[in-house]
Amino acid sequence: MRVVHKYGGTSVGSLERIRATAKLIQADIARGNEVAVVVSAMSGDTNRLMSMAQEMHAVPSAREMDALLSTGEQVSAALLSMALNHLGITAYSYNGAQAGFRTDSSHARARIKDVQSDHLIHHMQVGEVAVVTGFQGIDEAGNITTLGRGGSDTSDVALAIAVQADICDIYTDVDGIYTTDPRIVPQASKLQYISYEEMLEFASLGAKVLQTRSVGLAMRFDMPIHLRSSFEDISGTIVGGEDTDMERAEITGVAYNRDEAKVTIKGIPDQPGIAARIFGPVADADINVDVIVQNVSEHGYTDITFTVPRHDYTATMHLLQDLCVAMNAEKVKGDDTVAKVSIIGVGMRSHTGVALKMFDVLSHENINIQMITTSEIKVTVVLDEKYVELAVRSLHRAFDLDTTI
Amino acid sequence: MRVVHKYGGTSVGSLERIRATAKLIQADIARGNEVAVVVSAMSGDTNRLMSMAQEMHAVPSAREMDALLSTGEQVSAALLSMALNHLGITAYSYNGAQAGFRTDSSHARARIKDVQSDHLIHHMQVGEVAVVTGFQGIDEAGNITTLGRGGSDTSDVALAIAVQADICDIYTDVDGIYTTDPRIVPQASKLQYISYEEMLEFASLGAKVLQTRSVGLAMRFDMPIHLRSSFEDISGTIVGGEDTDMERAEITGVAYNRDEAKVTIKGIPDQPGIAARIFGPVADADINVDVIVQNVSEHGYTDITFTVPRHDYTATMHLLQDLCVAMNAEKVKGDDTVAKVSIIGVGMRSHTGVALKMFDVLSHENINIQMITTSEIKVTVVLDEKYVELAVRSLHRAFDLDTTI
Repeated sequence: MRVVHKYGGTSVGSLERIRATAKLIQADIARGNEVAVVVSAMSGDTNRLMSMAQEMHAVPSAREMDALLSTGEQVSAALLSMALNHLGITAYSYNGAQAGFRTDSSHARARIKDVQSDHLIHHMQVGEVAVVTGFQGIDEAGNITTLGRGGSDTSDVALAIAVQADICDIYTDVDGIYTTDPRIVPQASKLQYISYEEMLEFASLGAKVLQTRSVGLAMRFDMPIHLRSSFEDISGTIVGGEDTDMERAEITGVAYNRDEAKVTIKGIPDQPGIAARIFGPVADADINVDVIVQNVSEHGYTDITFTVPRHDYTATMHLLQDLCVAMNAEKVKGDDTVAKVSIIGVGMRSHTGVALKMFDVLSHENINIQMITTSEIKVTVVLDEKYVELAVRSLHRAFDLDTTI
Repeated sequence: MRVVHKYGGTSVGSLERIRATAKLIQADIARGNEVAVVVSAMSGDTNRLMSMAQEMHAVPSAREMDALLSTGEQVSAALLSMALNHLGITAYSYNGAQAGFRTDSSHARARIKDVQSDHLIHHMQVGEVAVVTGFQGIDEAGNITTLGRGGSDTSDVALAIAVQADICDIYTDVDGIYTTDPRIVPQASKLQYISYEEMLEFASLGAKVLQTRSVGLAMRFDMPIHLRSSFEDISGTIVGGEDTDMERAEITGVAYNRDEAKVTIKGIPDQPGIAARIFGPVADADINVDVIVQNVSEHGYTDITFTVPRHDYTATMHLLQDLCVAMNAEKVKGDDTVAKVSIIGVGMRSHTGVALKMFDVLSHENINIQMITTSEIKVTVVLDEKYVELAVRSLHRAFDLDTTI
């Protein structure tokens, strides 16, 4: 198999961790695989560089920031190559430019245009390892760019696609995706397999393990991702195309996110365009709106409720107070102690009863549902934060996800 | 004027020093100059990277070492660009590849083949500053290379030649070249001007301010170097082509080097090829031989004496003991408490009495001369280390270099 590994900042966060990472690569080569590697900067290094930049300029030039930060991965790539050499493995480090990562010119959040990496395939074919810096590339003019949040995962997937790998392995500090958070439900079990779509839903619910962006890219090119632990050489969760297992469970997992707040404008005179008048300013303020519910209009007045990340709660409330006056609405209400709980599963496409069963389970526990939103493979409810554990536990049990020990 | 500045590790050794360096550049632009800049890594950074590499591999790959170390200059170049931006100056950092430094593939001691820097000229012409990483380049295959000792000075001179600068300014922690060491002779004065040839002699005598390599390159392309302080904006010493000043002093300066040892093989059967039999193995051991004296042969036997750097003394003595046996020579003698004192000056070409005057001055002070070597613009004597100060002081006075205060 041809595999592109990716190691995040903690996997190369110390010289000891770099040595351990080199051993994981050695083990995979010993299994007969052709391996290339994508690395992040040593954890802490990026912050060190950023704070130096801050001392030089309150708002450093994005181009220079990219030139500065890109050194972080170059350091870890060179050190990891040396560690591999020490194990007797021929290895070469490549920075973004050398590895052929062509991007657009949007510094700090560049998008990959293509990866010209034929020279890297040669290394893999003769048992050598190319260690490529994640998170970076160059634009057409030769400027160094960085990819922004989740960039290294995206580099990994893009490189895997370019070298026609069979799979890309993302080594991280968790060992896979679980049916739910094991800190809440000890019976939670690691999923062997999850579909791209499900992973996207998990990621958008704040599962920090994989960025939406890299999953989206993998899905588009059908490049399976093996999400696995960098602390032990065991298999994790494979994110891939939909399987055809007839027996698969109704739902794949239960996710939650506490980082939520809910705001409501009540008594808005119901006219065309009110949604735009509200969400325009909210978007301008870079606030991410999630679940939105608009009540059925009554006597020419309506209410709109939506959730925002909790750290945007105060800003959102201020904004809505102003809008309330401008729109002649009745009043603004808010609650920053709500949470989201979701059940996710490609199985539910053909199981219309799933949503109903979820509401039933929650009602049985006397948990009040404040808002509901559904997608093809997810049902999300907003509820009082204090019920999160109870809701997650009962749903996990009710949908037969508890493992028998 | 078009000027390429170079700042060494101490000039960018802290965020405060980077800010001060940005101000020096600003001052030069305010004088109406077009400026590009070459920077070294922040002092300490290279050692930090090297020690990490040592932890990964006892003998790290030279290619990976270059990839690792080259990040040092990239960091300082980006930070200096930000500091310039902060002063309202448009600036862009360029690493070796981006600046067009093409080298051969000798990692850790690459030689510059050419500098494709037309794009940097454009910045200078519109009042912008290109901040280029010194010490590095890329080879034909796109591998990162470093230039080795004195590399950043050489980058500076090479870039100045490429962008057709009028002069290259090397900012350093000394403010110029002095007639001799002011710690020994307080009346020593800063030279406004020194020829390339003289500077080469000073450099080869261990003056750490400029590497022979960069002076040689400057001489070949007649690119004047302004050696000046990075701590205050005053003029230093200009190294350039010979001036035609009729009034110039017989000698330009008195230099010395304590880092010397002297070894002798006595009673070697005098046959053709003995020099090769001795200096072959010495060169193989990477020992730099300097002054060599061979006695006139007597009764078929001869003596050979030469100096080596003091830290190579023990190794040289061991080597010679073996050679002594192999060559049927009488014995080996050594002394690691000698020093060299030289008088240097292009003026002496037409002043044959200079050497004689030197010997006279030393003899007057009862200083015994152990060895003598002369070049077109230099007379060097080897003497007991304890006489260094006395010799330097009396020569400085005798050749009218003492300034009147």
